[in-house]
Amino acid sequence: MELRDLKQIVYDGNIALVDRRLVILTWGNVSAIDRENGIVVIKPRGIDYSLLKPEDMSVTDMYGNDVGVNKYLPSVDLDIHLEIYRNFPGVQAIAHTHSTYATAWAHTGRNIPVFGTTHADHFFGEIPCTRQLTAEETASDYERNIGRVIVDKFRSIDPMQIPAVLVAGHGPFTWGSSVLACVEHSLILEELAKMAINTLRADPLAPSLPEYMLKKHYLRKYGEDAYFYQEVKD
Amino acid sequence: MELRDLKQIVYDGNIALVDRRLVILTWGNVSAIDRENGIVVIKPRGIDYSLLKPEDMSVTDMYGNDVGVNKYLPSVDLDIHLEIYRNFPGVQAIAHTHSTYATAWAHTGRNIPVFGTTHADHFFGEIPCTRQLTAEETASDYERNIGRVIVDKFRSIDPMQIPAVLVAGHGPFTWGSSVLACVEHSLILEELAKMAINTLRADPLAPSLPEYMLKKHYLRKYGEDAYFYQEVKD
Amino acid sequence: MELRDLKQIVYDGNIALVDRRLVILTWGNVSAIDRENGIVVIKPRGIDYSLLKPEDMSVTDMYGNDVGVNKYLPSVDLDIHLEIYRNFPGVQAIAHTHSTYATAWAHTGRNIPVFGTTHADHFFGEIPCTRQLTAEETASDYERNIGRVIVDKFRSIDPMQIPAVLVAGHGPFTWGSSVLACVEHSLILEELAKMAINTLRADPLAPSLPEYMLKKHYLRKYGEDAYFYQEVKD
Amino acid sequence: MELRDLKQIVYDGNIALVDRRLVILTWGNVSAIDRENGIVVIKPRGIDYSLLKPEDMSVTDMYGNDVGVNKYLPSVDLDIHLEIYRNFPGVQAIAHTHSTYATAWAHTGRNIPVFGTTHADHFFGEIPCTRQLTAEETASDYERNIGRVIVDKFRSIDPMQIPAVLVAGHGPFTWGSSVLACVEHSLILEELAKMAINTLRADPLAPSLPEYMLKKHYLRKYGEDAYFYQEVKD
Repeated sequence: MELRDLKQIVYDGNIALVDRRLVILTWGNVSAIDRENGIVVIKPRGIDYSLLKPEDMSVTDMYGNDVGVNKYLPSVDLDIHLEIYRNFPGVQAIAHTHSTYATAWAHTGRNIPVFGTTHADHFFGEIPCTRQLTAEETASDYERNIGRVIVDKFRSIDPMQIPAVLVAGHGPFTWGSSVLACVEHSLILEELAKMAINTLRADPLAPSLPEYMLKKHYLRKYGEDAYFYQEVKD
Repeated sequence: MELRDLKQIVYDGNIALVDRRLVILTWGNVSAIDRENGIVVIKPRGIDYSLLKPEDMSVTDMYGNDVGVNKYLPSVDLDIHLEIYRNFPGVQAIAHTHSTYATAWAHTGRNIPVFGTTHADHFFGEIPCTRQLTAEETASDYERNIGRVIVDKFRSIDPMQIPAVLVAGHGPFTWGSSVLACVEHSLILEELAKMAINTLRADPLAPSLPEYMLKKHYLRKYGEDAYFYQEVKD
Repeated sequence: MELRDLKQIVYDGNIALVDRRLVILTWGNVSAIDRENGIVVIKPRGIDYSLLKPEDMSVTDMYGNDVGVNKYLPSVDLDIHLEIYRNFPGVQAIAHTHSTYATAWAHTGRNIPVFGTTHADHFFGEIPCTRQLTAEETASDYERNIGRVIVDKFRSIDPMQIPAVLVAGHGPFTWGSSVLACVEHSLILEELAKMAINTLRADPLAPSLPEYMLKKHYLRKYGEDAYFYQEVKD
Repeated sequence: MELRDLKQIVYDGNIALVDRRLVILTWGNVSAIDRENGIVVIKPRGIDYSLLKPEDMSVTDMYGNDVGVNKYLPSVDLDIHLEIYRNFPGVQAIAHTHSTYATAWAHTGRNIPVFGTTHADHFFGEIPCTRQLTAEETASDYERNIGRVIVDKFRSIDPMQIPAVLVAGHGPFTWGSSVLACVEHSLILEELAKMAINTLRADPLAPSLPEYMLKKHYLRKYGEDAYFYQEVKD
C-alpha cells in the first residue's frame, strides 16, 4: 500500500472517533501498520483535530524510529501501539480513546463481564482489564510498559477473538484487521460499558451469560460453522 | 397487499429504528406478515444499513422456506419472528433491537415493574422477561427455541395487551398490529427501561403502581369505555 | 386577548416541549387561561404533533364545558388543569410532561430535595410529590381528583414560589404566569431531577442546602430586595 | 488589548459554553481580565443569550467599580470573579457553569477523586470542593464570601495546576491563562464528573489513581521534562 493511502486511512479513522463522539479534544489516537514494509502510521501528538491533515500523520518503523518523513512527532502513546503490533501478529490497526463509559469502567480495574449476547456477538469473553503499573514501570519506559501489561494480559487469550482491553485507571484500547474494524470495536466497547453500568444499576447482582450462550453467539458469527452473515463459510 | 409495498414498509421500519437511535451498526431487525398469503418479509442478515434497499428485504413462507425471490438470506432471527407469528394471531409486525436501556434490563433476567402511568398507558402489566435458555435449547434449533420461550412466557398474558418481551441476557422484542406500531413499542419500551433504571437510582425501594391505577390508565385508552382518544368507542 | 392569539401561544408551548425533548410521542400537554373571559385553551387529546395546527387547540370554560368552537375533544388531563386554575389564582398557564428524570423521580413518591442553588434559584423549597390516589379517587372523577391532591399538597405552599409538582407514580406538572414561564419551569424541573439522581449516585447521603442558602438564592432573584436581574425592583 | 477585542473574546467564551451544552438558560458566566489596565469584562446579569451582543459585556475595575461604559449591570457573580483575580495572579479568565454532572457532584460537598489518567492529564490532584458558607457569610457580602472560601481552599494548592473548584451546594468555577483555556477546563471538568459518577456506579469502592501515576501523567504534559506536546520544553 502507498504510504499516502495509509495516512489517509489513519486520518479518517481518527476523525471517525471524533464524529462518533468517542473522542473529545485530543483524547485519542489511531494507528495502522504496513507489515510488509515495517511501517507504522499514527496520529501526531497534541495537535488540534481541526488543524490536522492526512499528510500530518507520523510515520515510524516498528521500533519507533523516525523514517525521515515526519513534520510532527508521533503520539506519545506510540510505544503502546508498537508493543501491541510486535506481539499480536494479526493486528493491522489500533485505536485508543477516553470514551466516557469504557474509561469509567477502566477506573475500577476490573474486567467487563459478559452480561449479554450483544457482548458475545463481538468479543469471545470478558473485556480484560490490565493490572495497574508499578511505580518503577511508570518511572521509565512508561508507554512501552503499558504495552507490556496489555500483552501480558493476553497470554492465554487470542487477541483477535477479544480485540479490546482496558488499561486500569486509564482507558480502552481496541484493535483489528483494519482501521475500520478497530474504530467499530471502540464504538461497540463503549456501548457495552454503558450497558454494563446500567445493568448493575438495574440489578447489582446481575448474572453473567452462561458459557454455552457466549460460545453460541460468538461462534455463529465467527466460528467454523458460522451462519450469521450472507456468505456462509465452507 | 403487494409484496413490493410490504417490502417498502418493512424497510422503512428498519430505518426508523436507526433514526430513533434504537439500533446501531446492524443490531436489529423488523419483519411484517401478510397472513392472507402466508408471506413474511424481514431484513436480510448482516447487511450494512447504508447499503440496504427496500427490494433487498427477504421473503419466506410461515415456515421459513424461501419463496424464490430472495437476493439475500433472511435475518438469523427469522425463526424467532416466525414462532411469534404462528402463535400470536393478532401480530402483524415484529421489531428486535439491542437498545441500550432495554438490553441492560434484559441482562438482569427480571421483568420491568410497572413503576408509573407512562408504562400503564401502553402495556397492561410488567414487561415479561423470559427465562434463560438451557444448553440443549441453545445447541440446536436455537433461534426457534428463543421464540418458544417467548411464547411460553405469554401463556397467561394477552400479547396484544403487552406487546413486548425481554429475552434474558439478550434484549427486547416488540410486536403490534403494524410496523409503525411495533417500532413505536420499541421506542416506548426503551424509554420505560431508562425511566425504570433511573427510578431505582432515585430510590432502590421505589413502589410499583397500584393495580387499580394500572387498570385505570390502560383501560381509559384501550378498554371498552376508553375515552383517551378523539374517536370514543361505542 | 384574542382567542386566536391564545391558541397560537398554547400551540407554540406544546411544540416547545417537543423541541426541548421533554415530550415524545403525545406524552404532554400545555394549556393557558384567559381569566377575564373565563376561557381555557388546551391541546386536544391523542393527536399526533405532526398533524397539530394552532387552530386545533381546544377551548372550554373554567368548568370544562365546550364553548362551541371545538373541532377536537380537549386533553384527557383537562380537569387536572381546571382544578389548578380554579385554586391557584396567579396561574396563567400549565404544562404537563412525562420527561425522563422528573417522571423517574415521581415514581418514588418523594419530594425532590433542595440539593443546590440551581434549585433554589427557581423554586423556593422542595418540589412536592403528591400522595398516591386511592382506588375510590381513581374509579370516578379521576382527573379532577389528581387536581385535588395537587391542590391539597399546596395548602401551606405558595404555588407561585414553587410552580411545580410531581404526581406520585405519574409525572410532573408545572405552571406559571405565562406559557413561556411554565415551559421553562418544565425544563428546569427536568434538569433538577437529573442532577438530583446523579447527586445520589455520587453520594447516597448527600446533604440538602441549608435553609439560609435556599432563602438567599431565591430571594436575591424574587424577593423584595432582589438584585439578580437588570431591572432592580423598587 | 483593545477593550472591544476583550469584549468579543468574553462574549465568544460565553457562547462557547452554551454551544458545548455546559450552560442552559442563563446559568453561567465568563469573564476576562486586562491586568495591565486593571479592567475586568464579564457577562451582564440575567440577559437572555439570544439577545446578548459582544458590546453588551459589562466592564469594571478590579474592585467592581463601574468604569462608565456599561449599558447593563455585570453578572451577580462578579465579586466571586474579582476575589479570584485579586488572589490568583496567573488567572486571566474565569468561567462558571451549572453543568449537570459537575453540579451534581458539587451537591455532595466532596472533592472529585483522581480516578484516572484523564483527570491526571489536566488537573494535578483532586478537584477541591469548598466548605459550605455559614449563615453569616451568606447574609451579607455573599458573592465575595464565595470567592473567599474558594481562595481559602487553595492555600496549599497551586491554582494554575488545579484550575477548577466546586463550590459546595452550588457548582463549578474554572479559570486559566485565557478564555479559551477556562472554557476547555469547564468542558473537561464536566466530563471528569460524569466519568466519576459512572465509575462509582460500576464500583462504589473504585480505587484512586496511585500518586506516582498522577505525577507521571501531569508532569509529562506540564512538567519541566514534558514531552506530551510537539514543542518540547528545553
